[in-house]
Amino acid sequence: MLNDTVNQIGPLDKAAMQAAEKHQNSLAIPLRSLGRLHEFGIRMAGITGNPRPTVAAMGVITMAGDHGVVAQGVSKFPQEVTREMIANFCRGGAAINVLSRQYGIRLTVVDVGVAGPMPDMAISIDNTAADQPAVRFARCRVADGTDDFSVGPAMTRDQARQALEVGIRIFREEKAKGMDAVGTGDMGIGNTTPSSVIAACLLNRQPGEVVNRGTGIDDEALKNKIDVVARALAVNQPDPDDPLDVLSKIGGYEIGGIAGVILAACAARTPVVIDGFISTAAALLASRFNPNVKDYMFAGHQSAVEGHRLMLDDLGLSPMVDLGLRLGEGTGAVFGLSILSASSAVAREMLTFEEAAVSEPDEEETSS
Amino acid sequence: MLNDTVNQIGPLDKAAMQAAEKHQNSLAIPLRSLGRLHEFGIRMAGITGNPRPTVAAMGVITMAGDHGVVAQGVSKFPQEVTREMIANFCRGGAAINVLSRQYGIRLTVVDVGVAGPMPDMAISIDNTAADQPAVRFARCRVADGTDDFSVGPAMTRDQARQALEVGIRIFREEKAKGMDAVGTGDMGIGNTTPSSVIAACLLNRQPGEVVNRGTGIDDEALKNKIDVVARALAVNQPDPDDPLDVLSKIGGYEIGGIAGVILAACAARTPVVIDGFISTAAALLASRFNPNVKDYMFAGHQSAVEGHRLMLDDLGLSPMVDLGLRLGEGTGAVFGLSILSASSAVAREMLTFEEAAVSEPDEEETSS
Repeated sequence: MLNDTVNQIGPLDKAAMQAAEKHQNSLAIPLRSLGRLHEFGIRMAGITGNPRPTVAAMGVITMAGDHGVVAQGVSKFPQEVTREMIANFCRGGAAINVLSRQYGIRLTVVDVGVAGPMPDMAISIDNTAADQPAVRFARCRVADGTDDFSVGPAMTRDQARQALEVGIRIFREEKAKGMDAVGTGDMGIGNTTPSSVIAACLLNRQPGEVVNRGTGIDDEALKNKIDVVARALAVNQPDPDDPLDVLSKIGGYEIGGIAGVILAACAARTPVVIDGFISTAAALLASRFNPNVKDYMFAGHQSAVEGHRLMLDDLGLSPMVDLGLRLGEGTGAVFGLSILSASSAVAREMLTFEEAAVSEPDEEETSS
Repeated sequence: MLNDTVNQIGPLDKAAMQAAEKHQNSLAIPLRSLGRLHEFGIRMAGITGNPRPTVAAMGVITMAGDHGVVAQGVSKFPQEVTREMIANFCRGGAAINVLSRQYGIRLTVVDVGVAGPMPDMAISIDNTAADQPAVRFARCRVADGTDDFSVGPAMTRDQARQALEVGIRIFREEKAKGMDAVGTGDMGIGNTTPSSVIAACLLNRQPGEVVNRGTGIDDEALKNKIDVVARALAVNQPDPDDPLDVLSKIGGYEIGGIAGVILAACAARTPVVIDGFISTAAALLASRFNPNVKDYMFAGHQSAVEGHRLMLDDLGLSPMVDLGLRLGEGTGAVFGLSILSASSAVAREMLTFEEAAVSEPDEEETSS
């Protein structure tokens, strides 16, 4: 399933992009004065093959997992918060619930590798408000959290493949319900640490360049976290040319799940908006399976945490909103999806100079 | 009406802001990890007096006017485009129609000082799609465009006051229908030129620092535009300490209208999102009537045109989205309104640590 998906990811449709560009340039406004809304529209034309693509049905897929490396004191929150937050997602009271409801975006939460028993809340979901998109919770646990990668590999190579295939399967299920664009999200106490290791490995950076305070650790804990990242690289020697090797040695399950969603979205020619630090680490991994992946992705926001920008630069992505978010869950992806939807409305609903009977500028580009 | 409005604009409600901050800090996420969404929520609490403010009913008010200075060749579009675009707004096919519909935002278009006869389209509006917010078109013309400010004053002091009062009146009418937050927009061929003069005057900058290519003029026309701005300042000597003097000497009617909307919104304790270069010039003028105005404003986006950043810096505002827009109409304000609405949803709908039964971090802020 993984190899087939990776091999399906082709280049952008240049003919659709040319048709899209011609249409965008005919709109009754100064040439390209809606800036990146035009660019997004043209790239989405290349992704979907439709010069005037529709982005109406949207979803965020939030992948959850736990991390053995929390034993090394890399987070200030206890590990059970991963499960408590899944209960909160299912209750509809978390940030990603509020923001996805706000923009009419479906939410799917997936246990790819959480540690410990799932709370009842996550099993019997009660969505009381009828006008709110329901939360889907999917139990696809590969293992009870990763092993501590500061002393050995996080998981087996087969488990890494399973995590990726959870993402592929969940995306396909959601796509079958209608999904014009997808956003990624994460939940997992401690998961900025594996994301930092992945960034250091794939970008060939020193740990100090890609480690950040995560949920808010102090100076001493930050120093420890940098040491843990350095040890992870020394102990495991992940091979930057083999993304499955990196995922299996470092983890986590939710990062593999997100990379799987991205690969499946690309294979299905669906635009994908990545969230912050953790999702972008997964996007880096996905891009190492097939370089075409970069053409299908959009960056929702610039995270407030250090290291995110370095990863976005590698992917050639520039964030859409600057809101100082550093939460994850998919909260930054929501804003990006909303803007892709606006870009699609521009391509589909605006009138051209001719249709609107608006005078065009002097063709010689001199002043009137 | 103008003086009463200006005098009604008071300081932010500190008690409501303290209550809002306490609530935001109790949400079940790492402290303040939704960044500026918290800041916006707290400032809106200060504006409205409600610690958990609602931003549901929203509107954009797009002010239109013409400019005698187009005789100096400052734009590449002919002047009739102002009227043609009003017809397009009324038809529902312009960028601001598409984007405001996208986010459920009402649109009001106002002729504050357009030159020439209004097209029939603007008088008999036909909104066929029942699920789309209707466009309101209001005829409040103070004069048939401004006089050419490169040779003398744009309008009389009384006309400047009338333009401001059009904005105040329209805002009040829209507020009476329900308006939790308002955005500003502009339409007027040539209006980056008066906006540049206002910026140069109020920020004490050289014309070359605040003039830009507007709708896309070439190098020669840009040089001419800088000369026109310099002449406007030399001929009229607008007094930077008297915003009514600046408005009357430079114009335009739509800029006065926007400044009026801003003043009325502040007086009614309503958050106001300013759009790009022209709206921000109007915001600068409004802030010179009463310095409290700055506390009520939010910057929708960073325009791609030069000079916008200097104006935002003076107002102490930082843009929310980076989409390279340089159109006006209110298109950048729409994204800002949408984000304020998201910020309000965070304040109103998210659960706290206690409500969600999520474990709080170690209080000593050490790693767990």
